[in-house]
Amino acid sequence: MTTRRIKIIVEYNGSGYHGWQVQQNAHTVQAEIENAILAITGEKVRITGAGRTDAGVHAYGQTAHFDTKSTIPADKFQYALNAVLPKDIAVISSENAEPEFHARYSATSKTYQYKIINRRVRSPLAENMAWHIPEPLDFDQMAAAASLFIGTHDFSSFCSSGHSLSNFTRTITASKWSREDGYLVYTICGSGFLYKMVRIIVGTMVEIGLRKRSPDTVPELLTNKEREKAGITAPPFGLYLVSVDYD
Amino acid sequence: MTTRRIKIIVEYNGSGYHGWQVQQNAHTVQAEIENAILAITGEKVRITGAGRTDAGVHAYGQTAHFDTKSTIPADKFQYALNAVLPKDIAVISSENAEPEFHARYSATSKTYQYKIINRRVRSPLAENMAWHIPEPLDFDQMAAAASLFIGTHDFSSFCSSGHSLSNFTRTITASKWSREDGYLVYTICGSGFLYKMVRIIVGTMVEIGLRKRSPDTVPELLTNKEREKAGITAPPFGLYLVSVDYD
Repeated sequence: MTTRRIKIIVEYNGSGYHGWQVQQNAHTVQAEIENAILAITGEKVRITGAGRTDAGVHAYGQTAHFDTKSTIPADKFQYALNAVLPKDIAVISSENAEPEFHARYSATSKTYQYKIINRRVRSPLAENMAWHIPEPLDFDQMAAAASLFIGTHDFSSFCSSGHSLSNFTRTITASKWSREDGYLVYTICGSGFLYKMVRIIVGTMVEIGLRKRSPDTVPELLTNKEREKAGITAPPFGLYLVSVDYD
Repeated sequence: MTTRRIKIIVEYNGSGYHGWQVQQNAHTVQAEIENAILAITGEKVRITGAGRTDAGVHAYGQTAHFDTKSTIPADKFQYALNAVLPKDIAVISSENAEPEFHARYSATSKTYQYKIINRRVRSPLAENMAWHIPEPLDFDQMAAAASLFIGTHDFSSFCSSGHSLSNFTRTITASKWSREDGYLVYTICGSGFLYKMVRIIVGTMVEIGLRKRSPDTVPELLTNKEREKAGITAPPFGLYLVSVDYD
């Protein structure tokens, strides 16, 4: 039987998971999908995701690929997988991909969103789905700061340490705040992202919104390459992997 | 010690509850709040809500009152209660009310919303928070139907049976559909609502959106007073009690 590569787009609520990536003795999104593929094809496959979301991070459009010898038509994988996947994970689409397609390395850009609920009282309806900031945030200052991330920069200051990367340069094509349905929503689109980069950018902008630092510190941070000068890492549950683009 | 009446506004995620009202051996929102008041004041009080939401129904602005001999300042109840309430319930505001204020009988209008996610695939991020309709809905037909509920009508056709009410006439001041962030959102505002009225109105409009019936059937239903001629009862988890207004 011939082997085919299948591309899937996945939505999930990350609240109940220790992130995307398979780990020993941990409940992960990747493991759930691999178990679902095993259930419908009998094959033990390894799937590859475009991005390894951390525990608690959500996705509207995580993208992944896997190889199968199954004769199930590509578009039918979606229905078959959704029938066995838990309610907090769903395959939004499934299709045949070229053998050289790679969910991570073929990606040309990714879009993330980060949701903040900015009001005095915590919100039960936003629980696990947004970061609650009780102190008033200066939206204009945050919007001014967001625009400063656009362009090609060295993001060493916005990367969690402990990684042996050699290249910290990434290109950001969109970076903006909007108000949506009671939330402050940050949208960032770029060629690639370093580990915890979006969450450190958001944490830094929240410090700007709280007037603990000025938007002027952003260009300095992009030049200085000092993680400890940047802001805190925003909590994972406000972060959403919205989409992954391929040429 | 003098007794004061306190008015509270409450937000909750109804997913984990058997509705608002206290019932034997059931986990309810009212019981959680009464337990929280007991924890902070030592008083066993009964609270009265503006509307008895069913199991799974959510609220942005349920309103309730209770009487207390506690000396806690009215606005401090909010903080004290939120410190002991579970994460899926929060008191949004607390204030002193007149002794004759009654959360239910003093209410002059209530606003509900109903959220539908209309796409082929189920949505993990909308799970328990919206009704998933996989078949395409005709938005314009539903919008046309919604406007026909505005006015003073006998809503017998839109009331769950088994109730010994004598007056089924209610006045609806707003009834409209909008598109918000991937959802179809129905907003209805009125002087009062019969049992399951919003959910039967929504179920009827969904049948109209699916072209199983025409908007013309709405005026007939408002005249006929026959529950069995109206549509199905929409599931509870798409319904939100948004606000309760008082003069």
